[in-house]
Amino acid sequence: MRHFIDTQDFSKQELCDIIDLSLAIKKAIRSGYYPPLMKDMTLAMIFQQSSTRTRVSFETAMSQMGGHAQYLGPGMIQLGGHETIGDTGRVLSRLVDIIMARVVEHKTVVELAESATVPVLNGMSDYNHPTQEIGDLCTIAENLPRGKKLEDCKVVFVGDGTQVCASLGFITTHLGMHFVHYGPKGHQLNESHKAVLEKNCQASGGTWEVTDDRNAVRGADFIYTDVWYGLYESEMPKEERVQVFHDFQVNRELMQLGSIGCKFMHCLPATRGEDVTDEVADSDSSLCWEEAGNRLTAMRGLLVYLTRYRTQPTQLQLECAKEELDRFLFQRIGR
Amino acid sequence: MRHFIDTQDFSKQELCDIIDLSLAIKKAIRSGYYPPLMKDMTLAMIFQQSSTRTRVSFETAMSQMGGHAQYLGPGMIQLGGHETIGDTGRVLSRLVDIIMARVVEHKTVVELAESATVPVLNGMSDYNHPTQEIGDLCTIAENLPRGKKLEDCKVVFVGDGTQVCASLGFITTHLGMHFVHYGPKGHQLNESHKAVLEKNCQASGGTWEVTDDRNAVRGADFIYTDVWYGLYESEMPKEERVQVFHDFQVNRELMQLGSIGCKFMHCLPATRGEDVTDEVADSDSSLCWEEAGNRLTAMRGLLVYLTRYRTQPTQLQLECAKEELDRFLFQRIGR
Amino acid sequence: MRHFIDTQDFSKQELCDIIDLSLAIKKAIRSGYYPPLMKDMTLAMIFQQSSTRTRVSFETAMSQMGGHAQYLGPGMIQLGGHETIGDTGRVLSRLVDIIMARVVEHKTVVELAESATVPVLNGMSDYNHPTQEIGDLCTIAENLPRGKKLEDCKVVFVGDGTQVCASLGFITTHLGMHFVHYGPKGHQLNESHKAVLEKNCQASGGTWEVTDDRNAVRGADFIYTDVWYGLYESEMPKEERVQVFHDFQVNRELMQLGSIGCKFMHCLPATRGEDVTDEVADSDSSLCWEEAGNRLTAMRGLLVYLTRYRTQPTQLQLECAKEELDRFLFQRIGR
Repeated sequence: MRHFIDTQDFSKQELCDIIDLSLAIKKAIRSGYYPPLMKDMTLAMIFQQSSTRTRVSFETAMSQMGGHAQYLGPGMIQLGGHETIGDTGRVLSRLVDIIMARVVEHKTVVELAESATVPVLNGMSDYNHPTQEIGDLCTIAENLPRGKKLEDCKVVFVGDGTQVCASLGFITTHLGMHFVHYGPKGHQLNESHKAVLEKNCQASGGTWEVTDDRNAVRGADFIYTDVWYGLYESEMPKEERVQVFHDFQVNRELMQLGSIGCKFMHCLPATRGEDVTDEVADSDSSLCWEEAGNRLTAMRGLLVYLTRYRTQPTQLQLECAKEELDRFLFQRIGR
Repeated sequence: MRHFIDTQDFSKQELCDIIDLSLAIKKAIRSGYYPPLMKDMTLAMIFQQSSTRTRVSFETAMSQMGGHAQYLGPGMIQLGGHETIGDTGRVLSRLVDIIMARVVEHKTVVELAESATVPVLNGMSDYNHPTQEIGDLCTIAENLPRGKKLEDCKVVFVGDGTQVCASLGFITTHLGMHFVHYGPKGHQLNESHKAVLEKNCQASGGTWEVTDDRNAVRGADFIYTDVWYGLYESEMPKEERVQVFHDFQVNRELMQLGSIGCKFMHCLPATRGEDVTDEVADSDSSLCWEEAGNRLTAMRGLLVYLTRYRTQPTQLQLECAKEELDRFLFQRIGR
Repeated sequence: MRHFIDTQDFSKQELCDIIDLSLAIKKAIRSGYYPPLMKDMTLAMIFQQSSTRTRVSFETAMSQMGGHAQYLGPGMIQLGGHETIGDTGRVLSRLVDIIMARVVEHKTVVELAESATVPVLNGMSDYNHPTQEIGDLCTIAENLPRGKKLEDCKVVFVGDGTQVCASLGFITTHLGMHFVHYGPKGHQLNESHKAVLEKNCQASGGTWEVTDDRNAVRGADFIYTDVWYGLYESEMPKEERVQVFHDFQVNRELMQLGSIGCKFMHCLPATRGEDVTDEVADSDSSLCWEEAGNRLTAMRGLLVYLTRYRTQPTQLQLECAKEELDRFLFQRIGR
């Protein structure tokens, strides 16, 4: 049994398995076959913040594969209020088959995983956003520049060093790709992030760079950005953020620094006119809508991957159990 | 692919198809057969306001037909907050199969439909309430006065010219029926509503009247009312509304102006003792509970109607897709 | 058709049937067989307060058995706001198959049951918590001391006379067991509770005691506690409650007053360090996590028990209904 808290906990091969599994299920569903791989299973979705993509993706993923997802939104359950996180983890493990949590503080999802006896998925924290990473790699894999492999690609994240920026750095360097964070001083990935990038590159042969030098964007295969207002819990006022980040808008000019055929990516939501212009977001080079669709792709793959340790009953076991229950129902309950 | 924003966008024949489809599915379910017509499909339900009937009806309709509905309540997603309506429409289209929205302002659902690439249903706006209309017509069709066709019926809406009043006027005149809004000056349907009624009647042969003359109620086959407090966003204080509307209460005296066997209808919730007396609401002439049940009837019909353009995979396609995925799962994931 | 508002409305035999049914379904699911006993059915879950165990249990129970549960949380529907409880009951009865309600005031769930024409389940009120009782009896039945029957067991509730305390007293005395409430004066079960206990014991041969004498704990087979802060609506400040209840903490010393092998139970959430020490809650004698898991066990049993009056259509009826609908779809809707 494994949790999915950080892609760093998985080997390169395991991450590739998850990505390929996600794409294989996507292909099946495109053909009209909805595989019942989560049949009879329940996912508890804990949200400490509002969410569109993560929430809808997980819930759709579960129902498309025969399972069910429960939305446990802010204030709906006792977590962290009347009940410790550990106790909530212990209890939910007895009531559902798998848990996801979008948390304000990273330690909350870590603590939940420590107490839970079913798999726990990190649906974003203030530290990272690993389900986004899987979806983004699905998108990149589907849109590789002609003749290039993953390891040949240069991915440039532009703007604020958010948890999405960090996560993109983690997975690309883990997979041997070339990662750049081009952002203003004071909003760049920090030393602890850089240590992860360095460690990854030494093992994988990838490269990394964190800089405010615009030249670092040159030759990008993928230019990625996120909003400028920072984490929901402590948003920067509009005036301030526009001043800090105005050189880091993804617009036509910036896109032209990329390679021929360079693609635009965004985890969304976007603040149009700030972090990206309409022209870029709505262009043919924009993958951001596909990318949103691949959140669902990733969720399906992750859910199946994390529950594959469960053994399936044999047909005979099922029939015996059914017969025994039916006899009880008929004799005692009259049904 | 069609949206369902306004019944005016549909021909008389199309509306009759939707109503008959709704009633045909109701009959099947009454017989114990739950048709899997929404199998594997997901409905996103966006609610900007609280709702009992619309919400529960849509969610029940989806599960009864093998699909799943997601409740996206006020504050749960980014819509209109961190994300534009257009972007939410584009994203949700990639994550679900069909969308419904109960909105504060009509333009929101229109904007959502413009950006969405899956069908969008209007679950009530400040302008109209078209899913209510379909349910109401199902109720009327099931309770036609002996010997009368739809086109022979007179429907009188009493009280405030709410979006339900407007909608009832739209569909009845579209179908060639006889519609009256009996309400106090200042709270009657406006000129733009009247233009729709007039246009409809010229095409259909129906008639319409908007008046504060109590004589207009005479001969009604159906007397319909709604609450007096107006739209949720700007409710009229109790004292004021009782003064404005006290002649427009549906009570025994008013019901007796209708035809023999005249039926009472109400979209609910009702403010008992204001817009309707207990005596009328709980009488044998009251259809208001059946009408609430037919919200579900209508939702099922609408969901099936709007997704009928989807092509179904052949058995062979399904088997090939399954085999390919199973092989991948076995070889790569060990499941 | 029956409601489940109070275990006092059921005979001893009926309660045993519900408990045994719950355990039989649990056994089937442990074997991997998920019985589709709620297929095509919808549960409306009304919550006037936040809830972890009750909410997640009911929702998981429905999906595991082929049905669907709708979460209608605080403020999501009109209940008690724009609409009377009776009207909400009448409406929901037409839109769902079964209703549960966690209410602030007991009279709300009673009123809902009076108006509803489908079964209503009490998911906790300020008076009692009967679904908890069924789960607790499942836990006790699975953990009977060697050689003892239910009727031989002594169950001691320690601390505040909450609705969980009252409910535990109700079901244990109903089933002929031996019940003690050991709590401080002013926070003990009241005269009306005691009248129920006395009536139950006269019929069943059980015994009861309400006392602040620590000796009453001696020989307990099960020691049970709940939080000290009282009902959510009027919580006692921490300082005050610690003063009132400090002799009533379940700790090693108190547990040692019980019989050899005495088990600890708690409805949860627990305030660790107040009502129970970590040492006890996390010990091998603690059943509180199993107990939480048996909330799900109980919900499945109750849902099936309360809907068993429904008649199932024959295969022929199903086929006729399907054929008729398919013909309509093909001819009129082109699907």
